[in-house]
Amino acid sequence: MRAYLDHAATSPMPREVLAAYTDALRVVGNPASTHGHGQRASELLEQARERIARALGCDTAELILTGGGTESINLALKGIYWARRASLGPDAVILVAEGEHHATIEAAEWLRDFQGARLRWLPIDADGVLRPAVLEAAIAQEGAENVALVSFLWANNEVGAVQPVAELCRIAASAGLPAHVDAVSALGQLPIDFAAAGAAAVSVSAHKIGGPVGVGALVLGRRIAAEPLLHGGTQQRARSGTQDVAGAVGFAAALDLAVDPDGRPEPVRAARLRALRDRLVAGVRAADPSAVLRGPEPWAAEGAAATGPGRDAALEPVDQPVRVPGNAHFTFPGCQGDSLVFLLDAAGVSVSVGSACRAGVAEISHVLLAMGISEAEAAGALRFTLGPDTRDDEVDALLAALPAALERARAAGLA
Amino acid sequence: MRAYLDHAATSPMPREVLAAYTDALRVVGNPASTHGHGQRASELLEQARERIARALGCDTAELILTGGGTESINLALKGIYWARRASLGPDAVILVAEGEHHATIEAAEWLRDFQGARLRWLPIDADGVLRPAVLEAAIAQEGAENVALVSFLWANNEVGAVQPVAELCRIAASAGLPAHVDAVSALGQLPIDFAAAGAAAVSVSAHKIGGPVGVGALVLGRRIAAEPLLHGGTQQRARSGTQDVAGAVGFAAALDLAVDPDGRPEPVRAARLRALRDRLVAGVRAADPSAVLRGPEPWAAEGAAATGPGRDAALEPVDQPVRVPGNAHFTFPGCQGDSLVFLLDAAGVSVSVGSACRAGVAEISHVLLAMGISEAEAAGALRFTLGPDTRDDEVDALLAALPAALERARAAGLA
Repeated sequence: MRAYLDHAATSPMPREVLAAYTDALRVVGNPASTHGHGQRASELLEQARERIARALGCDTAELILTGGGTESINLALKGIYWARRASLGPDAVILVAEGEHHATIEAAEWLRDFQGARLRWLPIDADGVLRPAVLEAAIAQEGAENVALVSFLWANNEVGAVQPVAELCRIAASAGLPAHVDAVSALGQLPIDFAAAGAAAVSVSAHKIGGPVGVGALVLGRRIAAEPLLHGGTQQRARSGTQDVAGAVGFAAALDLAVDPDGRPEPVRAARLRALRDRLVAGVRAADPSAVLRGPEPWAAEGAAATGPGRDAALEPVDQPVRVPGNAHFTFPGCQGDSLVFLLDAAGVSVSVGSACRAGVAEISHVLLAMGISEAEAAGALRFTLGPDTRDDEVDALLAALPAALERARAAGLA
Repeated sequence: MRAYLDHAATSPMPREVLAAYTDALRVVGNPASTHGHGQRASELLEQARERIARALGCDTAELILTGGGTESINLALKGIYWARRASLGPDAVILVAEGEHHATIEAAEWLRDFQGARLRWLPIDADGVLRPAVLEAAIAQEGAENVALVSFLWANNEVGAVQPVAELCRIAASAGLPAHVDAVSALGQLPIDFAAAGAAAVSVSAHKIGGPVGVGALVLGRRIAAEPLLHGGTQQRARSGTQDVAGAVGFAAALDLAVDPDGRPEPVRAARLRALRDRLVAGVRAADPSAVLRGPEPWAAEGAAATGPGRDAALEPVDQPVRVPGNAHFTFPGCQGDSLVFLLDAAGVSVSVGSACRAGVAEISHVLLAMGISEAEAAGALRFTLGPDTRDDEVDALLAALPAALERARAAGLA
């Protein structure tokens, strides 16, 4: 049985989610139809929307279901930019943190290259974190009255760095600016509370927590205007297209497993995930003392000995982790990450060099480069991401296969 | 058991499709991942893409899977306009037939209102058909060198009118213009052959033929450039976002049932659909001789007596119908369509006044108005759409309930 340690790429659909989803697939009717079939579909959809909205800390009127995280992010950036440029002019500034997901980067660059926006990158620190002072300075320099929106991650998808979301949102809001937060990699791992965060918009995706692929949401504050990306029958505010009842039900079912009704990660699952991750980190460090954990160190952050995780893991507050609990990311000196993926794959272990959305594209991670890591070091990156159904023996399989893979990868590098 | 005669709104997922889809949902892995899990997912995706491409008469390199018909249509209109305005300038003209689906209309109007495009509507005739001479004249008047693209339906979603697609595409192509064809309502009902049609782009949707909601495709000719709507990891040409393996498998499974491997409607199913539709039309006319069938008359077109369908139905060539075989659309003088939907619903029969994408929005059909039908007549519209699993007793239920519904609707109108 293969080991799957790439849950950040996509997480398997749990049995309970598959059952709920399959039941909903059998329901006949378009929820926009006024007849009995449509009403039944519409009721199912509304129930699912209410569960999703509660888990995300928003009102159902703020919940826009989309075709996935990429659509949500594109709708947020382009939609808000277009809505605001009516008053700001086309050369309004978009402030985007470095190290964002490619959906954010490419959408922002397209607005610059094809729509006349100005784009300013906000540097991140060596842990992959956007510091509040950086945002504050950028707004002051550009002038808040010239800025269309700000976009940053809730948690980085490669190195797991949790961002100071509430503080960043407060800075944006106090300057009168809408903040979009990409929470695709944070959902299910951290508490996501839209109302408490103070964001203008938050993007999430269902399949990262075991829901269906092709289902996501943009939470868009009531007072935030966004031009639609997809025009048509106006089935939803700022989003047209036949509503996916089964997709909403599947997403709600995945949230039911992943978080409590108020959106906090289910505590038993979260504790197990952290313990498994800590064991993986300790095991990797034991196998290769030269390996460097990238992104924040939860243990050091909590005052524990920086030499290794595990002992004081319980000290890190579950509600305010500095690192996504399911993520471990290392660079292995003298290795090519691609070679390690290949060698571990041959040993039956699925891991990734970074974002699956760019897998197959041979390039050095822009996240690691933005963190100030050299190209040579960044080339040796490997990301391990765990999910709620990750078994102990999957971590065992990785730790058993890693030494030989490292040895072969290094030998190949010297050849 | 309720009767469902609204397959154009969404068609139930057949057992075989549900089985294939559910199997694919159990596959773990993101097809963009390079490891074993990802490769397995990628193989499944590619197999599905090949089946879909063959059914649509295109190459897999021309197939862009999307989050549904609305996304496909928006990508075609906006993407091609943006790609061409680089050389044509922002005020390039978009030629759009009247009576299009709201996705096309709203996308085109947005390009006009927010992006500076010029928009010219092409009138349709009393049957809901865009005549080739109309397109030819519009291109001549605007000047081909000023036109960004042309967009029209393969078959109208309300009145079922099949358009002269090959001729329209030939006219566009001979003027050097890309033609986008919205085939959402034609798929499964008519042969869709991208290569033979000569279109630049064709939009389709899976759930209209019993595939999953939230899955569609834009077929985009190799040489046709389109700016993406959804930017990100560039998983597909002109479309980013995690690829939906199960969605592709479900779409392919639905196509396997609906059409032969080369995209022609499965003949036994098609013959049964036509016979059922003909019985429905004859029954409605018998119940209410004042009812007016809207859209083309397949029987008259084939030289049969115009007094009723059925006798010579077999004369209409299956490959070149003038009307989508699953569609019957009437106006009932002196009735409100909304009231009829309500009364038939109370009798357990689900039908629609027109496009489900605007159901719940009280407005007169723009399609009927474009056909020159008065508001008063158009208010009495009712659309019946059948699918491959429609049972005889569903048509019986409609015909049994219709006389009383008409009587009550007319009495209410007089009150």
